[in-house]
Amino acid sequence: MKRKSFGEMECPIAQTLEVVGEWWTPLILREVLMHDRTRFDELQKTLGIAPTVLVSRLNTLVGHGLLERRQYKQNPERFEYVPTASAHDFRPVLDELARWGRKWATLAP
Amino acid sequence: MKRKSFGEMECPIAQTLEVVGEWWTPLILREVLMHDRTRFDELQKTLGIAPTVLVSRLNTLVGHGLLERRQYKQNPERFEYVPTASAHDFRPVLDELARWGRKWATLAP
Repeated sequence: MKRKSFGEMECPIAQTLEVVGEWWTPLILREVLMHDRTRFDELQKTLGIAPTVLVSRLNTLVGHGLLERRQYKQNPERFEYVPTASAHDFRPVLDELARWGRKWATLAP
Repeated sequence: MKRKSFGEMECPIAQTLEVVGEWWTPLILREVLMHDRTRFDELQKTLGIAPTVLVSRLNTLVGHGLLERRQYKQNPERFEYVPTASAHDFRPVLDELARWGRKWATLAP
């Protein structure tokens, strides 16, 4: 099923979801912001995410300016993804998601 | 592509995403919580969402206890979805998503 883009909507919630609302993306930001895991290989291993999906999500975050891609090793080339100010400012959203989950998600079926 | 379930993860952020992290769901909660739109027909029309997708998302929210399905009309039958305490407590997440969007999403490419 093709996913409808929210980028054209004027609502700031929709605008945010267009950037960070894809499946996996908040968990990637959790690793980067809360656990200082910035390297592709450690993100992939920790999350157990398909490499192709991780590449796609990281490219979106880089494209929207939340992460900066930096090479930290040659032969073989390895890259890390360093959070910018806009990524750090997403931390309160993660904190609210965690608060809600601790309070309500255990009641789920 | 099959979507991996986050429900088995212990992280409270992942638990929350399992309930409300699907595409469209936060916007449905925006309509219900911030604009008092609880009827299926008005949700469908306002959001411009495919009816089958709206049914799926509403069923998930009902299943996790955020919404209660109530019939408000007969012949033809019509239903509304009334937010519970756990849905109202999701409002701070929407507020944070909106704050981030107002601050940063306009900088996106």
